[in-house]
Amino acid sequence: MRRVAIIGAGMTPFGEHWEQGFRDLVVEAGIKAISDAGISGDRIDAGFIGTMASGRLIGQEHIGGLIADYMGLTPIPITRVEGACASGGLALRQGFMAVASGLHDIVVVGGVEKMTDLGVNTVSDILGGAGDQEWELFLGATFPAIYALMAKRHMLDYGTTEEMMASVAVKNHRHGAKNKYAQFQSEITIETVMKSKKVADPLKVFDCSPITDGAAGVVLAPLELAHSFTKKPVEIIACAQASDAIALHSRESLTSLKATQVAGKKAFDMAKLTPKDIDFAEIHDCFTIAEIMAIEDLGFFPKGMGGPASLEGKTALGAELPVNTSGGLKACGHPVGATGVKQAVECVWQLRKEAEGRQVKDAHIGLSQNVGGSGATAVVHIYKGT
Amino acid sequence: MRRVAIIGAGMTPFGEHWEQGFRDLVVEAGIKAISDAGISGDRIDAGFIGTMASGRLIGQEHIGGLIADYMGLTPIPITRVEGACASGGLALRQGFMAVASGLHDIVVVGGVEKMTDLGVNTVSDILGGAGDQEWELFLGATFPAIYALMAKRHMLDYGTTEEMMASVAVKNHRHGAKNKYAQFQSEITIETVMKSKKVADPLKVFDCSPITDGAAGVVLAPLELAHSFTKKPVEIIACAQASDAIALHSRESLTSLKATQVAGKKAFDMAKLTPKDIDFAEIHDCFTIAEIMAIEDLGFFPKGMGGPASLEGKTALGAELPVNTSGGLKACGHPVGATGVKQAVECVWQLRKEAEGRQVKDAHIGLSQNVGGSGATAVVHIYKGT
Repeated sequence: MRRVAIIGAGMTPFGEHWEQGFRDLVVEAGIKAISDAGISGDRIDAGFIGTMASGRLIGQEHIGGLIADYMGLTPIPITRVEGACASGGLALRQGFMAVASGLHDIVVVGGVEKMTDLGVNTVSDILGGAGDQEWELFLGATFPAIYALMAKRHMLDYGTTEEMMASVAVKNHRHGAKNKYAQFQSEITIETVMKSKKVADPLKVFDCSPITDGAAGVVLAPLELAHSFTKKPVEIIACAQASDAIALHSRESLTSLKATQVAGKKAFDMAKLTPKDIDFAEIHDCFTIAEIMAIEDLGFFPKGMGGPASLEGKTALGAELPVNTSGGLKACGHPVGATGVKQAVECVWQLRKEAEGRQVKDAHIGLSQNVGGSGATAVVHIYKGT
Repeated sequence: MRRVAIIGAGMTPFGEHWEQGFRDLVVEAGIKAISDAGISGDRIDAGFIGTMASGRLIGQEHIGGLIADYMGLTPIPITRVEGACASGGLALRQGFMAVASGLHDIVVVGGVEKMTDLGVNTVSDILGGAGDQEWELFLGATFPAIYALMAKRHMLDYGTTEEMMASVAVKNHRHGAKNKYAQFQSEITIETVMKSKKVADPLKVFDCSPITDGAAGVVLAPLELAHSFTKKPVEIIACAQASDAIALHSRESLTSLKATQVAGKKAFDMAKLTPKDIDFAEIHDCFTIAEIMAIEDLGFFPKGMGGPASLEGKTALGAELPVNTSGGLKACGHPVGATGVKQAVECVWQLRKEAEGRQVKDAHIGLSQNVGGSGATAVVHIYKGT
């Protein structure tokens, strides 16, 4: 297998893009990534695009062909990959495999979702397609309700409190305020979260990531060619994916995502690193409890200590393990198919020391964790600056 | 890159499965493929599943996680791939890359669609998501109408007749009648087609592939390991994909699919073969005109001669190039995401000499061509018996 590097990265601002359609968003992010790589389109051999629910959100499937056309990249192959909210991370993984295998040299990877054209209840229903439609959503569960069950159990088993969860949102908003691409660039307090409306007890509005439009893109190349394109290639030193039961009631645990644990372990093995070697991480905080569980499941903190660690500021910029410097899904926004690729973009910027007001000092190794649905899919990448 | 072989293949009967859901179909095909490979599930390292429109058809996305769960394969990674009606072929291609790269050894590839639970108009609308939703379908075009435009132009430019198109349907029904997995196992005549209802002039009901439920699966392994599992591995000696403009009005030609031409040429180059070396082919005959165009675009017949060749029986079982021995999309049925994988299953059966009443004599090299939408994606595989 060949070693793989990211040679270009770019994204649209995340937010409510009333004036831009699905196609416009992909093209903007794609052109930014390709320009950043300093290449022209005719150097590109293949592409992968992550999007979760374009069929239901905008009536359009066949996204690979659509993007090849609108990016002016025909006749190169572009393939859509879907794994709910992990669609972007899975697209990155397919791109990694295409380059690692030697089948393609220069591969563009994108993630996109256009979510704000429909009403919030319709979008909630569509997002429900990430869970077990027949055994969870059809019977009335919503995604916040599913994560609320995990939160309740985490509180019972480990003494995690609502304030600890709120501290995750506060920290991610503080980071997002330093990111000009973030949907929410305003700081909030623990009180803001605690006083916000309940969505599914104990989760409140400010514990939940928002509905967002946006796209992100990266360009991959074999590491041995990467220096001919950029002075600062970022190597992908690990790429791992795992699955778990789709419905919560079939899981071994309500307080861990086994898919994250398995993918994390595989990724650390592949990179020959331990959690202590990671300088910063982009984590899938679709709900605040998800970030707490993930930093435990990945081995950054002992089981049950994710809440206290968050409240004590151990995951904030400047502390030992800055988590979600982009603002995370919570403040940067969560256009579901785009999120996994945006995580890679943030890791690239951090490792190239281009993260402006939110730069992690001495950032050398970064990790991203992207989750599909309530945890039936997880994908973990580890990146190294060069 | 490692060489890749198919070590197991299986499929559900194609048809209207009122008594089986999406999950049941995948599990049935998956178990058949895995049993055929003579392995247990714990040998499998990863999976890919092609499905076009599960979100709109059954309200379920996140198909990779769902399948891992229902196949009892967690925590291995399973990834959904979508490229409209080429979803199955693209899933096979991802599986090929995963094994070729050395990232995984044993990979299961599936394709599935559950289409008959909704009314025909709703399904037609959903299938429209394979074309350009904003510039074609929204403005009133349907898929038969798009292919009818191609047919009209082909008739004008090359003198192709309605009888020539009808002869494709007659031949594919004749083949389907010998396939116990086919949706339609009854022979028809040219008159049956000519007298059937017009759908979009000049295409009649019997020029169109049906709405179908079904699933198919194959198991892949590195060629060097394949003989430890089966006496008759089938090597995938070429795997190529290409794209074109998604809307018909942006294409260079109405009578060729450029994506098929490009993917075909790449595949022949990769296999170091020419069209003359192919013993039989599974072709994407979503409409009869599509088969005529494809056998020209792949170089089996000169441009404009696909119609006469079909009428003269040159693509029938027993003739020089048997096309669609399975019955094709027309008679075997077209559960869109499953079709590309079913083509591979038929090629495996032919190359293992297990195609019962429809066996191609001396079958040594087979080809499959799978198309997304009206041609924005095409994927071509070439298989070799061992």
